[in-house]
Amino acid sequence: MVLKLTLEYDGSNYSGWQLQPRHESIQGQIEAALERIFSAPVRVYGSGRTDAGVHARGQVAAITLPRPFDPAELQRALNAILPADIVVLDVAPAPDNFDPRRDARSRVYEYRVLNRRIASAFEYRYRWLVREPLDLAAMNAAARIFIGEHDFAAFRSLGTETTTTVRRMLSSEWTRDGDILLYRVEGTSFLRHMVRAMVAAMVDVGRGKLPPENLASILAGRDRQAAPANAPPGGLYLVEVRY
Amino acid sequence: MVLKLTLEYDGSNYSGWQLQPRHESIQGQIEAALERIFSAPVRVYGSGRTDAGVHARGQVAAITLPRPFDPAELQRALNAILPADIVVLDVAPAPDNFDPRRDARSRVYEYRVLNRRIASAFEYRYRWLVREPLDLAAMNAAARIFIGEHDFAAFRSLGTETTTTVRRMLSSEWTRDGDILLYRVEGTSFLRHMVRAMVAAMVDVGRGKLPPENLASILAGRDRQAAPANAPPGGLYLVEVRY
Repeated sequence: MVLKLTLEYDGSNYSGWQLQPRHESIQGQIEAALERIFSAPVRVYGSGRTDAGVHARGQVAAITLPRPFDPAELQRALNAILPADIVVLDVAPAPDNFDPRRDARSRVYEYRVLNRRIASAFEYRYRWLVREPLDLAAMNAAARIFIGEHDFAAFRSLGTETTTTVRRMLSSEWTRDGDILLYRVEGTSFLRHMVRAMVAAMVDVGRGKLPPENLASILAGRDRQAAPANAPPGGLYLVEVRY
Repeated sequence: MVLKLTLEYDGSNYSGWQLQPRHESIQGQIEAALERIFSAPVRVYGSGRTDAGVHARGQVAAITLPRPFDPAELQRALNAILPADIVVLDVAPAPDNFDPRRDARSRVYEYRVLNRRIASAFEYRYRWLVREPLDLAAMNAAARIFIGEHDFAAFRSLGTETTTTVRRMLSSEWTRDGDILLYRVEGTSFLRHMVRAMVAAMVDVGRGKLPPENLASILAGRDRQAAPANAPPGGLYLVEVRY
């Protein structure tokens, strides 16, 4: 029996989704909780990695149960065992061949910028503090450049396990709510650090440091060195994986 | 030269406002930062204590400078030294005899309840999770009982440094924003744990466990044992001190 888990987590205290020796990972926490419930090792397959400090409101993972177990009861049991910063939002039956990574049609990420002069004692792990005024219209002009199919080689980190750096973005838009700037992007899939690299470049556009036309040239040039460094991980959320 | 500091802090990782031996306190962090800046001990006087895990968006404190220092520069220096979960929102000159505790005309607290079935991986330190449906109208009927001058002996913890348990509430109201219930109360001053005890009783009213009339009797009876235990500290915020 295969189950689909939908997960929310605060990534602040983890080395990321992926199991790593000598580091606390989200995957590791869930596998440990499952092992306590079933007294047997249970592998958790995620839709993709999230890096250290990156959050999720809708990560999807699959497990194969070692013995029958009611999904609602498993959700309650997992939430009772897991640390408070990892929450199972939903558990549902899935087809036997469900592969959360390959079957995903698209992923939706959000990135939050706190645009004000003084830091927030509450939001420093959840927003990127940018003190200079930001031009939202210019940032949206930049965001539109990413829509469609492009080679994103200029906006990723090495170590991406992939044969091609071409990806297709379905939507890409900034909105403002008070002093929070929210970027929402949907794409078929993403390269390593891609959203954070795109956000850093668009924030440079918003600051007036980078004209949107130059951003288009950076994308076309496919050279990682030409694009700014990554935006910090704490602003990034994997919000939905669509199947 | 006396300065008035306005402070925001996430109380999750502290034993409270007040200096305590062998525990990290907000007051201790600020005094340590001031000592680094002035190379001399500087005492910080708060408008009142907040307990372990309680937050502030507008705590007020006073300091006497050992030597002249520009207020805006002091704010920058403190924010550069203080941990990210304590932020100095404002530094302003104050009269020599400014006493943040005695001079306060009123204090405003907020309390946040997350009213839904599933916990939040992000909000567990900032909202009290109440899973049962809550009746907002009944909670507001309860909140109105507290308005005006009353003896709040039934709603405090022992150890309050005070000669009288009579306090005056100027406003007391619940509002709902999606699955968040926000309680806002303004009073001349508060007894120890008073807001958390009031909130716990009002949430029992909202759950249907306590009729609002019984809440009035508990208040009139002045017996701490008659009221429910305190609501958890993480939902509570000192938002403003008015002078």
